[in-house]
Amino acid sequence: MLSAEVIAIGSELLTPDKTDTNSLWLTRELNNIGIEVMLKTVVGDDGARLEEAVSDALRRSDIVITTGGLGPTEDDITRQFTANAIGRKLVYHDDIEAHLRERFKAWGREMPEINKRQAYVIDGADILPNPNGSAVGMMAEIDGKILAILPGPPRENQAMFTAHVFPKLKAVAGEVYVRRRILRVSGLGESAVDEIAAPIYTSYKDVQTSVLFNKSEVEIHVAARSDNADVSKATADKLADELAAALGKAVFSTDGETMEQVVGSQLKQRGETLSVAESCTGGLIGQRLTDVPGSSAYFMEGAITYSNEAKMRTLGLSAEILEQHGAVSAECAEAMAAGMRKYAGTDHAISITGIAGPDGGSDEKPVGTVFIGYAGATVVKSAKLVLPGDRYLIRWRSSQAALDYLRRQLK
Amino acid sequence: MLSAEVIAIGSELLTPDKTDTNSLWLTRELNNIGIEVMLKTVVGDDGARLEEAVSDALRRSDIVITTGGLGPTEDDITRQFTANAIGRKLVYHDDIEAHLRERFKAWGREMPEINKRQAYVIDGADILPNPNGSAVGMMAEIDGKILAILPGPPRENQAMFTAHVFPKLKAVAGEVYVRRRILRVSGLGESAVDEIAAPIYTSYKDVQTSVLFNKSEVEIHVAARSDNADVSKATADKLADELAAALGKAVFSTDGETMEQVVGSQLKQRGETLSVAESCTGGLIGQRLTDVPGSSAYFMEGAITYSNEAKMRTLGLSAEILEQHGAVSAECAEAMAAGMRKYAGTDHAISITGIAGPDGGSDEKPVGTVFIGYAGATVVKSAKLVLPGDRYLIRWRSSQAALDYLRRQLK
Repeated sequence: MLSAEVIAIGSELLTPDKTDTNSLWLTRELNNIGIEVMLKTVVGDDGARLEEAVSDALRRSDIVITTGGLGPTEDDITRQFTANAIGRKLVYHDDIEAHLRERFKAWGREMPEINKRQAYVIDGADILPNPNGSAVGMMAEIDGKILAILPGPPRENQAMFTAHVFPKLKAVAGEVYVRRRILRVSGLGESAVDEIAAPIYTSYKDVQTSVLFNKSEVEIHVAARSDNADVSKATADKLADELAAALGKAVFSTDGETMEQVVGSQLKQRGETLSVAESCTGGLIGQRLTDVPGSSAYFMEGAITYSNEAKMRTLGLSAEILEQHGAVSAECAEAMAAGMRKYAGTDHAISITGIAGPDGGSDEKPVGTVFIGYAGATVVKSAKLVLPGDRYLIRWRSSQAALDYLRRQLK
Repeated sequence: MLSAEVIAIGSELLTPDKTDTNSLWLTRELNNIGIEVMLKTVVGDDGARLEEAVSDALRRSDIVITTGGLGPTEDDITRQFTANAIGRKLVYHDDIEAHLRERFKAWGREMPEINKRQAYVIDGADILPNPNGSAVGMMAEIDGKILAILPGPPRENQAMFTAHVFPKLKAVAGEVYVRRRILRVSGLGESAVDEIAAPIYTSYKDVQTSVLFNKSEVEIHVAARSDNADVSKATADKLADELAAALGKAVFSTDGETMEQVVGSQLKQRGETLSVAESCTGGLIGQRLTDVPGSSAYFMEGAITYSNEAKMRTLGLSAEILEQHGAVSAECAEAMAAGMRKYAGTDHAISITGIAGPDGGSDEKPVGTVFIGYAGATVVKSAKLVLPGDRYLIRWRSSQAALDYLRRQLK
């Protein structure tokens, strides 16, 4: 099996505020074609250390991928010190400069002179065009090893890896087929999932399975590997199916789809429409639903009724409900959903009202108290949640629970 | 200034599903006492690579901290290969074994024989007791460099670092005070910012400055360091002020606040209210605004008018505007903002309508065409944007531009 190393470059990645996420994505891509990542390095804008990191990596491993440090500023040292590491010169490419000037023109701007730095390329390296940014990437073979140099922004990095580096590595890696399945589970904790899942997956000796907890859900990752694509696929699918059957309706996705994708597909299939009324989530459900391309086919409208006036005006809530039960109550959640459904004229409506914190909690309704509501043609209902976490997590988990509530209605 | 490296050990950290978080926490702790982290390595359960990583790190940097690989199983190779790296032997400590047996007894269990491995310690190293687990840590001085070896679980790692490693490092680092400032800039690209900023920050020799590009903004990070807290503060503040003055109103934040925090503070100060009408962003602006605790003081309401019917019903758009100019037009954006302001009765309203893609673009209005609108007491206006990127980025950048548009009105 081929070995790889990833080197993430940039002093910002050595601060406590930033973390390198490219290497996770790259690791998955590499694993998918049977290449194992043996080491990762994060190095700052420090030429000597970068040069050493690259030459050490090329000595130890078959494939080395660097990310970042290709911008136009003085901090962007990757071009120079990767060249040093492999003992080659940088060469200026007039055509890259000309192309850059054109792109800046298309963006309605003059190219700043410092961007000329981005026209230097390692002598003899393949130039990897960047559809999403100004930095070109590079790929070179050195004594049978492969060095790929990619920019840091994930959108650029991933597009360029997929278009140019992946095909090359796939050819080198040969016949290794990895079939991956991701099951997503909502409404069950990590240990509860593992108690059900472990007896099943431990009996598959050649499949790598891991149970992970995300911010609002448990994921089961299954990866079967062999030199035969059909065998990998059959093995992974069999295990995934067994796990899905054992976990039942708590499994909302059997191939990695997000909750908003799953709900969207259900609505699309049924040819039905949805509206949402949000209080404490402030637009998060709408944002998630519309993150899915084509969501305009089923998502019609949302009301972010943050103030009580808005709840009354758009959703038709009575002052009595708000006075008697408060804005954070089952009654309010149900009236919000029913009012939204009526206002927007959709088949379904969901609602959320709650206390996301850090302030606003009480003994009776502590921070994390959230009501989700659903209204359909024949039913209006709600559920109470008491969610752990900070403001961000409470809002996220609320949105996930409300979408899951809808999913279970549609099922 | 002292330099440090962190080495995270464990094959699970090289899978796409796990990420090393210890190093972020350690970096913050080290930075706070003026120690700079120069490099991070993640290495699997691979003895040769670990040994090399440790000896390379000790050659390059003053302080090396390893995390993980101290468990009782065969995979836990840190004890053996850190010892190899510094050319020392492992010594068996009966007292550690005895202590472990007692702890297991207290947990109501017999100590498994494999836990005896945890009684081996590098010859001459200080033993760091672990209040939260079975693995002891170690700390050794090698030719004036410090090597600290800590277990992986954050609860164990952090407790042991705080109790034993931090005091030692603080004594070595002496009086070092770091003052950090973060400026955020919108409406200017990375190169344009750097052309203005570089002549200023490069004249501050002792301040570390970096210019970073985020998904919709440029950040300038400033870190001044000295043996006097007042000097660090004065230096960082002076540089930050000079940069802010040179960059003018493009600087929206001088101490790391997000755009939604900045706009929220402005509104709060003025005692004014806001509503939003979103089409292609689908709730993203509302979600961002309400991400700020206390936003209910100024954010009243949002309308996610995804369908044309919703635009007409809630925002009072005329069929003529939609027919003549289309939903993606300056006229529509202005009518949305004005309609929202009237509907919600707020002081200000902003709106977004555009084509986030991947579908829906045309020659005249390609994907990325977005109109943002603003309505206030005396003015209704709009701006056209043509944004690069995919659906996610176009939506994010639209929301940032709309909030920035509001900020500039309030300024």
